[in-house]
Amino acid sequence: MAGSSQSIEISKVDASGISRKNDSVAVEEPLEIQVSAQSAGGSAAKSISITMRTPGADEELAIGFLHTEGIITAPEQVLSVQHVGEIDPDSGTRNIIRIDIDPTVDLQLDRLQRHFYTTSSCGVCGKASLDALRVTGQYSLAAHQTRFPTKVLLDVPGVVRQQQPLFSQTGGLHAAAIFGSDGEIAIVKEDVGRHNATDKAIGALFSAGRLPAHDLALLVSGRASFELMQKALVAGIPLLAAVGAPSSLAVKLAKEFDMTLIGFLRDGTFNIYAGSERIS
Amino acid sequence: MAGSSQSIEISKVDASGISRKNDSVAVEEPLEIQVSAQSAGGSAAKSISITMRTPGADEELAIGFLHTEGIITAPEQVLSVQHVGEIDPDSGTRNIIRIDIDPTVDLQLDRLQRHFYTTSSCGVCGKASLDALRVTGQYSLAAHQTRFPTKVLLDVPGVVRQQQPLFSQTGGLHAAAIFGSDGEIAIVKEDVGRHNATDKAIGALFSAGRLPAHDLALLVSGRASFELMQKALVAGIPLLAAVGAPSSLAVKLAKEFDMTLIGFLRDGTFNIYAGSERIS
Repeated sequence: MAGSSQSIEISKVDASGISRKNDSVAVEEPLEIQVSAQSAGGSAAKSISITMRTPGADEELAIGFLHTEGIITAPEQVLSVQHVGEIDPDSGTRNIIRIDIDPTVDLQLDRLQRHFYTTSSCGVCGKASLDALRVTGQYSLAAHQTRFPTKVLLDVPGVVRQQQPLFSQTGGLHAAAIFGSDGEIAIVKEDVGRHNATDKAIGALFSAGRLPAHDLALLVSGRASFELMQKALVAGIPLLAAVGAPSSLAVKLAKEFDMTLIGFLRDGTFNIYAGSERIS
Repeated sequence: MAGSSQSIEISKVDASGISRKNDSVAVEEPLEIQVSAQSAGGSAAKSISITMRTPGADEELAIGFLHTEGIITAPEQVLSVQHVGEIDPDSGTRNIIRIDIDPTVDLQLDRLQRHFYTTSSCGVCGKASLDALRVTGQYSLAAHQTRFPTKVLLDVPGVVRQQQPLFSQTGGLHAAAIFGSDGEIAIVKEDVGRHNATDKAIGALFSAGRLPAHDLALLVSGRASFELMQKALVAGIPLLAAVGAPSSLAVKLAKEFDMTLIGFLRDGTFNIYAGSERIS
């Protein structure tokens, strides 16, 4: 995990006074994601995103981002992935990653602009956000009814926490984990950003040819937002469990696409906001 | 707070079984921010951002966003603010807000593109992110040395929590609060997103002519990221306190611009990552 955490000297304060100590903080550095599609006329790399991330799984992050944003749909579309540019002397990381994509793929990079609202009857609203997912080819997950036992769900956050080395060091990272109905944890990824941790986990599944993952579930630290539900939906993952609260639009998305949404999964209890038929 | 939370029926599960109950969730709806600058040739509104927010302080959010992104620098540059478009039948909110800006202002909307990295010697890296702030005219806050007593800092999270009506209902919102060295809480704003809550709080100060606020501090729930530190810096607020952990780049920014950064402010203790001279 070199480059993922940094040791610094801090002052610790409580009512009794102040003391100096060493502490670790999670590294946050920009990552530029570039896409190139080589054609007969040569190759031009296009910058499509700069995200603030914790270094360590840049390839999974970039691939997961491209998939959950609807740019790539199958692993064979990715011809190569490489870091480019200089090594940053401070962090020791390279902060540009370039994905070379099969030139036969119709790259709809304008999807990233998210100007899809104008086609909806309500203009800009929650319904338009849901409609836009349908336009990009997302369908109900109702046919996929793997059931997850209550005990598995209650135990997952504790098991995942033991597999978060950076959180243990820094107390300051989000996690996204993929698990099965038997409670086995397939993937745990950490990042300063919840969306990045989720993209890293989904990117790992994508590259392994494991998507759509109709038999798996996604656990996220923090809250369940519309955007995280959308990423699970695109990956075909029917159950999302959050340690924190869900938003109204996350609940609407879950109901509309027949997904299961669990919130406040902590301290031996959880709430089911949608899709209780998948809980046994 | 109509439109900020929604009541829904959920299932609550623990080891002993399942029960139905009513619950409140925080509303998440898209907000499109449009900017128009009327000139002799007429007015054209340009969409500059769509953010997923909790309705309730849209004007402060939009104004705060425009200020912390470097688009507007003084309240008199804002000629009018109005919601436009239809009322969404589901949420009862209008989801487009239009800011009419004095046409003599040089609108540098390309700043939003964040393609500032190419001018830096390291390409894309943390140092370039800091350099970019200097390019947009941000300077050290070293000259501003209002001191905040330890007791004030330790008490602030508890006082702010009592002023979070939506968090009390839903358990699921971030908060940003502005407070003085005497512990008085000037502003508390809530949102499903940390950045939005911060923009709402800073937007309220901006419109009241209270920026730069060299004598005030900002409390945020969750972690301290580069982006939140940047917003505090642009607002001239020299101290940011986070309930959670800071990232490496948040610490670097604080040191580089002589700000004070406090993390893990909870349970009667906190860590000082930079600028301890402001703590008494």
